[in-house]
Amino acid sequence: MEFDLVIVGAGSGGYEAGLYAHRRGMKVAFVELSPETVGGNCLNRGCIPSKYMRYGAYMIERFSHMSRYGILPKGFHLSMPHLKEGRDNVVRTIRENFKKFAQHLGIPIFYGKGFLKDPNTVVVEGADITLRSRFVLLATGSSTVSVGGMVADGRYIHDTDTIWNLEEFPKRVVIVGGGAVGVEFAYIFRMYGADVTLTELKDRLLPMAGIPEESSRFLARKLKKLGIDIKLKTTVNHYEKTEEGLKVSFTDGTQLTTDIILLAVGRKPNTEGFKETGIEMDERGFVVVDKHCRTNLPSVYACGDITSPLMLAHKAMYEGKVAVSHMLGDEGWEKNDTLMPKIIYSAYEVASVGLTEDEAEDEGYHVRVGVVSFVTNPKAMDDGENEGFVRVVVEERTKRILGCHILGPNAGELLHQVIHAMKAGLGADFMSRSVYSHPSLSEAIGQASMEVHFGPITWTKRS
Amino acid sequence: MEFDLVIVGAGSGGYEAGLYAHRRGMKVAFVELSPETVGGNCLNRGCIPSKYMRYGAYMIERFSHMSRYGILPKGFHLSMPHLKEGRDNVVRTIRENFKKFAQHLGIPIFYGKGFLKDPNTVVVEGADITLRSRFVLLATGSSTVSVGGMVADGRYIHDTDTIWNLEEFPKRVVIVGGGAVGVEFAYIFRMYGADVTLTELKDRLLPMAGIPEESSRFLARKLKKLGIDIKLKTTVNHYEKTEEGLKVSFTDGTQLTTDIILLAVGRKPNTEGFKETGIEMDERGFVVVDKHCRTNLPSVYACGDITSPLMLAHKAMYEGKVAVSHMLGDEGWEKNDTLMPKIIYSAYEVASVGLTEDEAEDEGYHVRVGVVSFVTNPKAMDDGENEGFVRVVVEERTKRILGCHILGPNAGELLHQVIHAMKAGLGADFMSRSVYSHPSLSEAIGQASMEVHFGPITWTKRS
Repeated sequence: MEFDLVIVGAGSGGYEAGLYAHRRGMKVAFVELSPETVGGNCLNRGCIPSKYMRYGAYMIERFSHMSRYGILPKGFHLSMPHLKEGRDNVVRTIRENFKKFAQHLGIPIFYGKGFLKDPNTVVVEGADITLRSRFVLLATGSSTVSVGGMVADGRYIHDTDTIWNLEEFPKRVVIVGGGAVGVEFAYIFRMYGADVTLTELKDRLLPMAGIPEESSRFLARKLKKLGIDIKLKTTVNHYEKTEEGLKVSFTDGTQLTTDIILLAVGRKPNTEGFKETGIEMDERGFVVVDKHCRTNLPSVYACGDITSPLMLAHKAMYEGKVAVSHMLGDEGWEKNDTLMPKIIYSAYEVASVGLTEDEAEDEGYHVRVGVVSFVTNPKAMDDGENEGFVRVVVEERTKRILGCHILGPNAGELLHQVIHAMKAGLGADFMSRSVYSHPSLSEAIGQASMEVHFGPITWTKRS
Repeated sequence: MEFDLVIVGAGSGGYEAGLYAHRRGMKVAFVELSPETVGGNCLNRGCIPSKYMRYGAYMIERFSHMSRYGILPKGFHLSMPHLKEGRDNVVRTIRENFKKFAQHLGIPIFYGKGFLKDPNTVVVEGADITLRSRFVLLATGSSTVSVGGMVADGRYIHDTDTIWNLEEFPKRVVIVGGGAVGVEFAYIFRMYGADVTLTELKDRLLPMAGIPEESSRFLARKLKKLGIDIKLKTTVNHYEKTEEGLKVSFTDGTQLTTDIILLAVGRKPNTEGFKETGIEMDERGFVVVDKHCRTNLPSVYACGDITSPLMLAHKAMYEGKVAVSHMLGDEGWEKNDTLMPKIIYSAYEVASVGLTEDEAEDEGYHVRVGVVSFVTNPKAMDDGENEGFVRVVVEERTKRILGCHILGPNAGELLHQVIHAMKAGLGADFMSRSVYSHPSLSEAIGQASMEVHFGPITWTKRS
């Protein structure tokens, strides 16, 4: 069969690229492992089900602050079967609609493992199908890895492949890894009633590039307040099964007994066998692509988790469209990791784009930072959720925005205003003179931008 | 006393202008009626306390959809004293901090009615104070009006001056006026347990310029579903006090008995006596200002509710800064009613900026509209709140964004992305190629922008 574009992997990146290519007139086909894996990790075992559970956790927390709204709850029961059914229903609905919609548009999905035979041929293993195509997009995603000899058994030891199968809420949880997945699940399990211990090898939570220490500290303070035990510079040293549960020893010398351990550690790109097909790879196993997401084989492109350790669904979606756009002759749309937001949903929404203040200084910029707290934001006060801040990092001379870091209510949506501004090259001057509705959380962005010009003018303490 | 700028009215517009002028080095003074009115109508009797109560209403509604998150509430009591205390506490906190902060910055507030004696002199009536100033900014706001012979008595008949004093939740409410205030309070009272009848003289709710019929219809459908009786092309004809309550006759011939009537009708500008000071006024009682918010008296500026019937706090705040900026010699920052968002918090957030499709066509534009439903938005599905839409109205040839209309979760914050884009002259092409995190509500904006180029591609029905 002949196509303009065959996409190996119908996850976030592949699917989005396929729809975009179809819109732009290409004849497209998907190759995906099985009907159950359409949508990829994000949909089936990642951002979508975790955000669902996080919303429940967030609502439990909100319920405990309702008396000031004249709402005096009599309490509530918690039920994992209800939660699971609701969550799986959302995942299934999105996945089935993906498939139905592809069918409706006339885009075939071939099930099996896709294998690049030559730069214009994809073989679907097991299905005995050979697809010829002008272009190929590799969008095969990533997989969980084990750490420190701990392998997920789906009963005592979980990773993000197995954690969804829990039949009831655990009473005691140890989480290994204080990155995005770790802090999200720490909050979820805590609000659903567990004693939670969160360990992180580095000296702070969310120890990733692009997230300022202020956000890590602020989040850690809140998680502690909610009763989560955070152990930094620590990991699990050893564990054994006992009658009371898993007896865990940590590298800091402490011990405890838990019901489960969740491994919230790194992932590896699904690029096994790629090298043999002639695709240039780096030493870590990632595909080497140019700014248009093209590999060393001119007809073969790659996007998402296999192009760099920045494993974000929207990075994959963006790169997929950049690739398709370039196949069609556009030169102007380029991949851009700096603009990829990092958004974490834990006890707060933690949202970052671009450089932190420290990173910008390390890169030689003269930096100014505008900081505004949500404490005094009228909309945040109305909503009873006025913790957090907006930090806008700006190049002193040009007022160009180098980064923005928001922690607090709706941070993940608010950040988009700054993402667009950064992409368009609009500076803090523009943002300070734009229009913000009153009352709105967005006003804090305008105020932080104004601080950059005029210095701090605020009656709240800095965060 | 000599100042660079005396501001008559320390409401949203005046206060924001004063802070901005102070930042830019001007010696500023406020004149305000009394310590209790600092912050103006928005803070004390408008957007801030109403958004507070709306948040409680919204939470009550959310509680009824929690079983899918494994949260099974045992019910709740409602308590007006708790609600009132929380609400008044927020209002008081903001107001007192306003005052403290002005004091901290060395900006005096003179209490009494400010009166323009000549273009450089403000007299504070009652306080026997005369202030000389290089510039004067009039920011005196607006007042409630009565309608159809109904005058607020604070017991049976309420307006937005008196409704805050209710000591308990009414069981039966009639609301006169289906504009922003009417639909907000209809939702609030309904969720707090009342039978609500909402009347509107025109043939739809929110019958204002800039809000599309789609938003009105969508909101009306939801309010009806919540049990609110909506009577269009109808108002109160007559009422009389009986033992059972207020017996109300409507112009459609129907009758009912209610506890209270809330007048949610227009407001009039506070410009009494302005004409006598030589300021040019229009026939409706508004101050005539140029694009820099300057009146016919070169040293006198005006902002907010007294400059046009578009009575929005953020319009006042924006105009106040435009005025100050012009006093300091900037010519580039101009008032712009088209960019002023209209954001209503009812059973949905309803947010609009710029022109509706119909208005754009009436103005002679060839229009394209991109529409995306929240039904299929993964973040909205995760949050269990996936009703509503994003409509982007674009000029066909240039792809310039003429307006945007969002109804649904966080519409009021999401809209800011498009406000900034419109202000910067960025088109739908830019918005379709920008970065959106996944999952996010913001993705719907990118998708609606993409529809403008390529036409609809979606598996949900249009709203």
